[in-house]
Amino acid sequence: MTKQLHLISTGKQPVEQFASICAHVHPYVDAIHVREKRKTAREVSAFVAALIGNGVPPQKIIINDRVDVAVVYGVKGVQLAYHSLSVSQVKRHFPRLAVGCSVHSLDEAKEAAKSGADFCIYGHIFLTTSKSGMAPRGVDSLQAIVASVNIPVIAIGGIHAGNAAQVLQAGADGIAVMSAVFLARDPVAEAKKLAHIVKQTWPMNGGEEC
Amino acid sequence: MTKQLHLISTGKQPVEQFASICAHVHPYVDAIHVREKRKTAREVSAFVAALIGNGVPPQKIIINDRVDVAVVYGVKGVQLAYHSLSVSQVKRHFPRLAVGCSVHSLDEAKEAAKSGADFCIYGHIFLTTSKSGMAPRGVDSLQAIVASVNIPVIAIGGIHAGNAAQVLQAGADGIAVMSAVFLARDPVAEAKKLAHIVKQTWPMNGGEEC
Repeated sequence: MTKQLHLISTGKQPVEQFASICAHVHPYVDAIHVREKRKTAREVSAFVAALIGNGVPPQKIIINDRVDVAVVYGVKGVQLAYHSLSVSQVKRHFPRLAVGCSVHSLDEAKEAAKSGADFCIYGHIFLTTSKSGMAPRGVDSLQAIVASVNIPVIAIGGIHAGNAAQVLQAGADGIAVMSAVFLARDPVAEAKKLAHIVKQTWPMNGGEEC
Repeated sequence: MTKQLHLISTGKQPVEQFASICAHVHPYVDAIHVREKRKTAREVSAFVAALIGNGVPPQKIIINDRVDVAVVYGVKGVQLAYHSLSVSQVKRHFPRLAVGCSVHSLDEAKEAAKSGADFCIYGHIFLTTSKSGMAPRGVDSLQAIVASVNIPVIAIGGIHAGNAAQVLQAGADGIAVMSAVFLARDPVAEAKKLAHIVKQTWPMNGGEEC
C-alpha cells in the first residue's frame, strides 16, 4: 500500500499564513488536518474556507472534532479524539465521511478499528514540544500496533525528515507532521523531502540508507 | 399563536442535577436547550443522553452550537450564535433541524429571519448575573423587533415569574429562562408558574392583572 503524508495545523498560525503554506505544499501531501482545538465553529470554518479558496482539494481536508463543519464544507473526513463524538456515532450518522481516530495505546487502536474507524493516528512517537513533559511512546510500540490492527496506522509526534524513515520502516502506514512543515524555514522544501521519503517502496532493503 | 417557554441550561450544573430537574419540569416547557459552551462534544452528548434517558422527548431538546451532536441524537434543533456555523449553512445541509439564532439587535434579528432561522432568541431584556456589567436591552427594543421580523422572537435575560407577563405583553412569542428554574428552590413549582403565565391568552386585556 502507498504510505501517506498528513499535515496537521499547529493551532497557532493565523489563517492567512496557514492557508498560504498549504496552497504551495498540498500537491505533496495526502491530507491536511485543520486541528484548531481552541477555535469556534466559525473560526474553524474560516480555516477550511481559506484552504479551499487557496486551491486545496476538499478531498485532502480533514477536520478535527467538528463533524458539522466537515459536512458543510464537503471535505474528506474528520479526526476524532476522546473528547469528540464516538467513531461509531459518526460512521452511523455521517457515512460519507472518512473517520480517523487519535489513539495512544494498543487497546485504543484496537477499539478504533472495531468501531469502524478508517484509520488511526498513533503517537507521540518521539519527543515533541507539543507534548512536552510526556514520555514518547517510541517506535517499538508503533510496530506492535501495526501488527495488531487492520486499519492504517499513521504515526505522529516529533517526526521530521531526519527520522521519518525509521517510522515507516517500523511499519507505519504514514506519518503526520505539524511543525516539521508549518514552522520550517522552507515549508515546500520540507514537504517535498518528506513526500519523497514516504513515497519510497517500503519496507526498504536492509542495506539501503534511510 | 401559542407562546413558548424555553429552558436553557446554566453551564454550571452537573449533568445528573440538570437531567434530574428536567425529568420533572419537561411536561411544562416547550424546549430545553443544552447550552454548555465550555464542554466538549462528548460532554454535551452526555447531557443530551441524560435528558433522553430521563424521559425528555427529543423533540423538546435544542443543542447550542453543536449541530453534529444534534444530528446524532435526533433532537429537534440547534441554537446558533455568532461563533457558530451560519443559519443558512445549517438550514442547507441539515434541513431536518429547527434552527434558532441568538440575536442582540434589530439588524441581527432581521438577518436571522432572512437567513431562514425558524426562531430567534433576543436579549438580554433585564439585568442578569449571566451578563453582568452589560446594560439590559429592555422591553421597548423587544417590541420593535417583534414588530419588524416575521419569525418568532423568544425573549431572554433576567426573566422570571415576576416580570414574564410584561415581556409577553410586549409581544414576545415566548420566554427563555435559565436560573429562574434551574437555580430555584423548587424548579417544578417555578416551571409550572411560568408555564401558566406563558399559556394565557396574549395580549391580555388592559385591566387584567399580570
